Amino acid sequence: MSVKQGQSKFLHGDDAYRYPGKITANFSSNVWPGGMQPALQSVLQQSVTSVTTYPPVDGERVRDRLAEKLGVKCENVVVTNGATEAIYLIAQAFSGHKSTILMPAFSEYERACSLFDHQLEFKRYSEFQTFIRLPDSIYWICNPNNPTGSIIDPSQLLLSATMNPNSFFVIDEAYESLVTHDCSILTWTAKVKNIIVIRSLTKSYVVPGVRVGYLSASKEVAQRINRYKQPWSVNSLALSVIDYSLDNQPFTPNELECYIAEAGKLCRAINQIEGFESRIGEAGFFLIKTSFSSAKIKQYLIDNHGILVRDASSFGGIDGQFIRVANQRAADNEKLIAALKMISKSFEYVN
Amino acid sequence: MSVKQGQSKFLHGDDAYRYPGKITANFSSNVWPGGMQPALQSVLQQSVTSVTTYPPVDGERVRDRLAEKLGVKCENVVVTNGATEAIYLIAQAFSGHKSTILMPAFSEYERACSLFDHQLEFKRYSEFQTFIRLPDSIYWICNPNNPTGSIIDPSQLLLSATMNPNSFFVIDEAYESLVTHDCSILTWTAKVKNIIVIRSLTKSYVVPGVRVGYLSASKEVAQRINRYKQPWSVNSLALSVIDYSLDNQPFTPNELECYIAEAGKLCRAINQIEGFESRIGEAGFFLIKTSFSSAKIKQYLIDNHGILVRDASSFGGIDGQFIRVANQRAADNEKLIAALKMISKSFEYVN
Repeated sequence: MSVKQGQSKFLHGDDAYRYPGKITANFSSNVWPGGMQPALQSVLQQSVTSVTTYPPVDGERVRDRLAEKLGVKCENVVVTNGATEAIYLIAQAFSGHKSTILMPAFSEYERACSLFDHQLEFKRYSEFQTFIRLPDSIYWICNPNNPTGSIIDPSQLLLSATMNPNSFFVIDEAYESLVTHDCSILTWTAKVKNIIVIRSLTKSYVVPGVRVGYLSASKEVAQRINRYKQPWSVNSLALSVIDYSLDNQPFTPNELECYIAEAGKLCRAINQIEGFESRIGEAGFFLIKTSFSSAKIKQYLIDNHGILVRDASSFGGIDGQFIRVANQRAADNEKLIAALKMISKSFEYVN
Repeated sequence: MSVKQGQSKFLHGDDAYRYPGKITANFSSNVWPGGMQPALQSVLQQSVTSVTTYPPVDGERVRDRLAEKLGVKCENVVVTNGATEAIYLIAQAFSGHKSTILMPAFSEYERACSLFDHQLEFKRYSEFQTFIRLPDSIYWICNPNNPTGSIIDPSQLLLSATMNPNSFFVIDEAYESLVTHDCSILTWTAKVKNIIVIRSLTKSYVVPGVRVGYLSASKEVAQRINRYKQPWSVNSLALSVIDYSLDNQPFTPNELECYIAEAGKLCRAINQIEGFESRIGEAGFFLIKTSFSSAKIKQYLIDNHGILVRDASSFGGIDGQFIRVANQRAADNEKLIAALKMISKSFEYVN
């Protein structure tokens, strides 16, 4: 897996809407496969009656409750229109800086940094060293990483931040809730000035259509970021999701353990199919290296099996032979395994 | 009313959430006072079940339907997270340009332009001349204007755009649906390269909590703006509101006529109260000049009458003695008139 610079294609997963009526099993989105909790659905339906007034400009009340729950101060937290707004606000607040993206990575880090004139560098995620003095930069690190599911130990990240006080460490924890052990350094944002943590409620509460995320940073950095924040960027339903999340876990620890175990099974089963090579991550999704073109495999699976996978070539830093899948229900997993076996046997269909 | 430069305070109306349980009549928000249509509420409640998948990155399908309805091409339209995102995207796409804001004006024009390093100038709305050669600039014009309700004839704006091909005319039509006659130049955006029109569905469909707006511009300008757009900035419910709006008018022409007539009555009644001077606009809201401090009047009305008005001092270009009110139901209007009469008689309470 070689690191290519500036090759993020700004295409995205879960593009099921492009294939209306065609998709029966969607592996392309890495949200929790259990669906939205009925109680959250009721809360959102209730919230619809409250959209007739403006939400608080910065989501104040909910932000303050959230900060308390997170163990930081309200001055540390900025609620955002999905994690995406957090990424762009950070890039804007540090416009013109040097940035280093750990690859492969979500393409929006590169796009946001480019729009705000960052001097971009790219580094392999797997080669990132935490116990050394690093060149001054803003380090963009997704932990656990999307699309690989790899994790850097949080204590190692903290060590890096401490050893490199002139750098900033943007830690995207959009997937931290999908990991069975604690891999977050969010609470440190209130104490360590150069750590910024991004979070999303999309994945665990299954609400990608609502657009809800937040970031936590030192008071100084949060102030700097707030200078650029648009008023009312976070809608009323998004605030309701945050409120709900403070009193309701997205799933039980047992459900999460099962999910990760099933992902491991799926990964191993795929790894035994000739022409496919997969390595499990820690968050229920993983990359599959194929002997074929990822774009063609994607299209073949849609057309012949109603299966949607993520063509991972849109992630910068990897070539066109990777797809990403996220663990789904057992019956869907079987379907995917069967389909990949069929490709393996008769690869002239896709090659 | 003198034009003051750089004095927008970035405070906003409809801050009822700051006074929980206190407000019984809210004049501070200029959304349609009839409330959300029950059919739209049902649509939104249905939409809640669809938030478990990502919305299209740029709201594609809905954007294309909207463009058709507006009589422009889909390449002209950008759907946005409220009109606010449209304002910021335009400011960003023209970063560093010269901008001229017609005052008094919504404070976000100035904030957005400042963040993207525009060279700012300010001009009185009432003194804007449309039949002359203007200095090259981006002209920010709210039509009908917020907070005054004044209108510049659309044919005059078109003339200006044609006479000044090196300038851009950003026309904020957030309130155009609240006017009894057609004051829009939106369809011209497909033909005239230097007109950009901003629209909001917030006011007429009573959905400030959903965050839904859009802009229409020439293909070239829309492309330039799209370079800066964040993916998924428009949530699934916002797209449902646009979809709904294409098949459902927000109110009947007769309802609108009555609303404007009632606003006129309210304005005249207030104008007869000593210490208050009001001039009706064309969109159901208007400014009231007071002999007292607008901040103190606002607080007094909250504390003693449960009435919320908009302290207009946050609009750049006017001083601290203006409040803005929007026509409400007859009973609420009576309440406001009675309260202002009380202030007028015993103004030591607030002065």
